Amino acid sequence: MRLIAFDKNGNATMGARDGDAVIDLSVAAPELPDNLTDIIKLGQTGIDQISTAISGAGDDARIALNDIKYLPPTTNAGKIICLGLNYADHAAEGGHKKPEYPSFFLRTNQTLVPHQAPILRPVVSEQLDYEAEMVAIVGKQARHVKQADALDYIWGYSVFNEASIREYQRKTAQWTIGKNFDNTGGFGPEAVTADEIPPGGNGLRIQTRLNGEILQDANTDDMLFDVAETVELLTECLTLEPGDLLVMGTPSGVGHARTPQLWMKAGDICEVEIEKIGLLRNPIEDEVLPG
Amino acid sequence: MRLIAFDKNGNATMGARDGDAVIDLSVAAPELPDNLTDIIKLGQTGIDQISTAISGAGDDARIALNDIKYLPPTTNAGKIICLGLNYADHAAEGGHKKPEYPSFFLRTNQTLVPHQAPILRPVVSEQLDYEAEMVAIVGKQARHVKQADALDYIWGYSVFNEASIREYQRKTAQWTIGKNFDNTGGFGPEAVTADEIPPGGNGLRIQTRLNGEILQDANTDDMLFDVAETVELLTECLTLEPGDLLVMGTPSGVGHARTPQLWMKAGDICEVEIEKIGLLRNPIEDEVLPG
Repeated sequence: MRLIAFDKNGNATMGARDGDAVIDLSVAAPELPDNLTDIIKLGQTGIDQISTAISGAGDDARIALNDIKYLPPTTNAGKIICLGLNYADHAAEGGHKKPEYPSFFLRTNQTLVPHQAPILRPVVSEQLDYEAEMVAIVGKQARHVKQADALDYIWGYSVFNEASIREYQRKTAQWTIGKNFDNTGGFGPEAVTADEIPPGGNGLRIQTRLNGEILQDANTDDMLFDVAETVELLTECLTLEPGDLLVMGTPSGVGHARTPQLWMKAGDICEVEIEKIGLLRNPIEDEVLPG
Repeated sequence: MRLIAFDKNGNATMGARDGDAVIDLSVAAPELPDNLTDIIKLGQTGIDQISTAISGAGDDARIALNDIKYLPPTTNAGKIICLGLNYADHAAEGGHKKPEYPSFFLRTNQTLVPHQAPILRPVVSEQLDYEAEMVAIVGKQARHVKQADALDYIWGYSVFNEASIREYQRKTAQWTIGKNFDNTGGFGPEAVTADEIPPGGNGLRIQTRLNGEILQDANTDDMLFDVAETVELLTECLTLEPGDLLVMGTPSGVGHARTPQLWMKAGDICEVEIEKIGLLRNPIEDEVLPG
């Protein structure tokens, strides 16, 4: 099952993809919540309701995929937890040793940008870089969960472009500010339930293409800390809640590690694609100062 | 004006302090939202409604301060942005140079603990440390705001005990995980409007007392980046929203920099007090594993 959040007359609306169409769940299953986090909280009941809605949807609930304006799959995650340096070759290209523990940091929902909407290069820095990442979406409350059971707590997967302002990321040892500029977190297009994806999202090709040129090309098998181990490590410390996002780190090939360095600029088109999960496409635009 | 969030029969409720009493705003001003963030969004209208409610409150709206169960002043901040190393003496005690830019990191709402509720020492580490910090609460949407205008965007102030699991904070260069354990962010007791506090919260004594012993004792004048400059620096990067929290860093005297190191343990009482803003008191308890 592939869920999409979209804008319908200014209102956030959930849909389920059916081939080249989206089933508008506000029409086909109006009893369902209007956001993914609350649908996830319904557990199997929510999935069953959506299945029924897809199979019974009439033409009034069917919208051509090309006609929708995407929203981020969620915008009300309780936490967006990112992993840095989670591919050995990316850690090495940044001059870091192979990590013994994940470099966790947080993003805010406010940074999120949906499929097809612009990622913004800020006025204060030219150093806008791409990062292809897989997202694991938490399905159930989790605390002190062992690796062997961890995937039971994952609802599904999505695609993230964890765009970073490198100059700000490296102003101090804390990367957070460089990861939290407005309109820099490409997310989507779809939230895909775990049953459609190999366990843990393993074994999937992950790529970044900038204006068609392949700049990152790896496999999720190369993650140092996979989804299951990440859940175990995080839940030693805190409670994961339904709808929380785990943004699983990027492979090598980012712009700041290239010679010469490569920064995204207005007019570029950045695509992040993960096999079986989806293709996230964002144009790059310059931030425009107010007034 | 001093606002308090409290639990009334299991429901989060807002109150305004009037001496030794709390005016229950769900009775005295039922038209107001039940949370601080949404009250802040009302701007001056919200303040005026509360003033009217306080002066007109009957006995049915008046609760003895000693009888309430506190909640964190807010639990739905869009962002909780913390500053590390924001007092020169604290930076020095941790072996850091005087910073040229704030070390920003994020906390989640899920870490928050109200006045009088326990801060938990986790099962995975003994290294639970205190950090006295002033909180500035954002009042209006802010982007590209200059320092000279920045305090116009601050609604008020509160007190934070930014308790940290040092072992996890230092597992990698990213402090975030050590700052986001469940039940470690003491916050409250009150949210105090800016008109009751010196501009920028400057010139206020800030202390931590553990079991009555003074362990941190400084003045907010010693912050390297004050509230106004912090707003300017942050709004170069992102949009501050009403209800966002800026947690302004801690002075020297933390437990991990002492010889021998001092960790909080079950049975301790930790107090953080900031002159004119308030006294936040939390007992320490051990996390209890489920099952």
